[in-house]
Amino acid sequence: MRPQEIIEKKRDGKSLTRDEIAAFIAGVTKETWADYQVSAMIMAMFTRGIDADEQTFLTQEMLHSGKVLDFSDIEKPKADKHSTGGVGDKTSLIIAPLVAACGVAVPMISGRGLGHTGGTLDKLESIRGYRVNLSLKDFKSVIRKCGFAMNGQTSEIAPADKKIYALRDATATVPYIPLIVASIMSKKLAEGLDALVLDVKTGNGAFMESETDSLKLAAALTATGNSCGVKTQAVISDMSQPLGKFVGNALEVFEVLKILRSEDDDSMRPTRELSVELSARMLALCGIAKTESLAVQMCEEKISDGSALECFRANVELQFGDTKICDSPERLLEKGLTEFPIRAARDGFIANINARAIGEAVCEIGGGRSMVDDTVDHAVGYRCENVLAAKVSKGDLLGLIICRASTPTLFAPEKIRNAYTITDEKPKVSKLIYKVIS
Amino acid sequence: MRPQEIIEKKRDGKSLTRDEIAAFIAGVTKETWADYQVSAMIMAMFTRGIDADEQTFLTQEMLHSGKVLDFSDIEKPKADKHSTGGVGDKTSLIIAPLVAACGVAVPMISGRGLGHTGGTLDKLESIRGYRVNLSLKDFKSVIRKCGFAMNGQTSEIAPADKKIYALRDATATVPYIPLIVASIMSKKLAEGLDALVLDVKTGNGAFMESETDSLKLAAALTATGNSCGVKTQAVISDMSQPLGKFVGNALEVFEVLKILRSEDDDSMRPTRELSVELSARMLALCGIAKTESLAVQMCEEKISDGSALECFRANVELQFGDTKICDSPERLLEKGLTEFPIRAARDGFIANINARAIGEAVCEIGGGRSMVDDTVDHAVGYRCENVLAAKVSKGDLLGLIICRASTPTLFAPEKIRNAYTITDEKPKVSKLIYKVIS
Repeated sequence: MRPQEIIEKKRDGKSLTRDEIAAFIAGVTKETWADYQVSAMIMAMFTRGIDADEQTFLTQEMLHSGKVLDFSDIEKPKADKHSTGGVGDKTSLIIAPLVAACGVAVPMISGRGLGHTGGTLDKLESIRGYRVNLSLKDFKSVIRKCGFAMNGQTSEIAPADKKIYALRDATATVPYIPLIVASIMSKKLAEGLDALVLDVKTGNGAFMESETDSLKLAAALTATGNSCGVKTQAVISDMSQPLGKFVGNALEVFEVLKILRSEDDDSMRPTRELSVELSARMLALCGIAKTESLAVQMCEEKISDGSALECFRANVELQFGDTKICDSPERLLEKGLTEFPIRAARDGFIANINARAIGEAVCEIGGGRSMVDDTVDHAVGYRCENVLAAKVSKGDLLGLIICRASTPTLFAPEKIRNAYTITDEKPKVSKLIYKVIS
Repeated sequence: MRPQEIIEKKRDGKSLTRDEIAAFIAGVTKETWADYQVSAMIMAMFTRGIDADEQTFLTQEMLHSGKVLDFSDIEKPKADKHSTGGVGDKTSLIIAPLVAACGVAVPMISGRGLGHTGGTLDKLESIRGYRVNLSLKDFKSVIRKCGFAMNGQTSEIAPADKKIYALRDATATVPYIPLIVASIMSKKLAEGLDALVLDVKTGNGAFMESETDSLKLAAALTATGNSCGVKTQAVISDMSQPLGKFVGNALEVFEVLKILRSEDDDSMRPTRELSVELSARMLALCGIAKTESLAVQMCEEKISDGSALECFRANVELQFGDTKICDSPERLLEKGLTEFPIRAARDGFIANINARAIGEAVCEIGGGRSMVDDTVDHAVGYRCENVLAAKVSKGDLLGLIICRASTPTLFAPEKIRNAYTITDEKPKVSKLIYKVIS
């Protein structure tokens, strides 16, 4: 089958067969389709639409374009969670050791940050020595020893997705739910899981800003996971302000350790609450706990008795990181940085926080990437001092930009200042978790 | 403006501004847009549609992506004709010298054959020595000396079209009228013309098989030409059988010379009639003749008094070709070729001839190209012995395949035999010219 014939069919809005989608994905993987043919096909899919069957075929063919991990020799249930990305979302680093401490194996393959959202790999690399490029053999061996491992996507896992994602990014074809589903699920299903919990963010800092779109995405992800034999649930969670206290790589790992050490303060509570909620759902799906509330209880115990922290310490050691941070989280905080205060322009209540703008500002001061090849400054970031609905007086501290004195921060302070809307009326506080879809 | 922003707008079905289309075409020409971004944009244009303004902007930006010829120092009206391509269509080779003989300058830039349709350049190259790769300076000098020149498209003329066309061919985005219009008109308008006549073919051997599509294309081409200040007319002509007696490069030049020498037989009449019709329209548009019928009369005179032939001879000499063919057209016919007869399978009337199948068969025996890089055998082809609606008896000659004994002609005879449908009832004969649009 010539690429043109398959492209033509989708161009005319017809449904593609499994064989045609298989030929397309094989063409991507083996590079027998030129990039310009792949991008024409993706645009035709975007503008003409693909149906549920096509979405499933696409996911499965992308999944099988590379290695599918086999953990059948690890005699534990396997589970993972995936987030659609947000600002200050460091829950993965809590969930993995916490769920592992409860007896579930977590083979977590993560990504890097891009644009306003952070990435788990960048956060991990703020731990001195920590390696996220393990071979699949070593990845498995770490899981066997401490219950979880966190690694970057290798070219062996769903290579077709990697190629297609890069082209989508360059051709304005990212925001289409069936393509998003195929991209996420082809990678996650390659992890050989029993259970998967998806954290679909909604709000101004999320990839999908509207709740309607988030619900659609959650439903499509859940249906695809379950139809492929993996128990899948999706949680719609709030991203209308940064999650927790810190935004920025090392700062977020610091927050993680404060929570794992039960030294967290009020401003870290949303991080802890969402981490426990997602962990508990993973445990319940795996049958480790009979009910959600028992699972929540189990999680709280594993944090307070220090077993989640010990699990994290074991992992850091196995992945070549500096374990001293587990005893002294302050070691993560670089000394001599500049703290630039952002203050309230008037009296009132914080009615709106543009989380995306804060993420972009942190990116601008070096804490994130505008382009995939940018390097990241792990030390810099933002500390939130007040949350949505808080009452403030003119001049009160809203937050602190933590940056290098030498970094030109042309737009960051202004951008963050403008991210806050202060009004006379006390606004309604949005719930942390909107809905659960299974 | 990032490519993604412009692609996104068209992806969502919005109209692009002149500036956005200019940025797109500049990106194509300067290669600052990657091929996969160009193809995504083209697919978005195909599936979402572009409006009349966008089509005009696209044509004009493509036109100005390269050199626009300036013939203001030649004090004659300038005119050209363009055909959408057919089987056995050799009218360009008659029209150029005929119109030139009437006092109009014809700067004809032509293409090569691909698939079932032939190309003017290939036909010209069957004249020993004839060169179609003149520099723009020499091209102009030939026009000044003999009234017309015929040349290949150089990379200086509408380079954006060349790039986009190659991508359209590879991504199933060829058959969309606004893109076809932009492609044709960007090249033709770069010729610096006063008048342009378009020959839009309709029927089974044409690019656009249905009359409705041909009419749409003709209307769009004419509107674009006139809106760009070039007097433009389109003729919808029949391509439900090969035009005239011969299909194949040297054979077609032979037919041209027989007509220019007034030695044509009945089977060449459609070629002569269409050539005169198109030439007369060019003359009328240029104001050389007051009415169409006076223009037809002028053309007939210039053929019968030999001035069109002399104009052709002068051109062949100036473009380094062998002028002896003008006195002895038989020199074009290679000796020792095999003639393979195709005979009627039954008594009756020829009700249908699949012109496309005949074009493809000639391509198969070496007379055309399947791929752009194929070389062409100029000597081979097909001679039509009976036309649509002719009464035949079983065993009568329908035509002769003229090929090399050594060429494997696996499918050609069968293909041509199947191209003829013979029925008991005498069919209605289709008109040579369906309609004129101005």
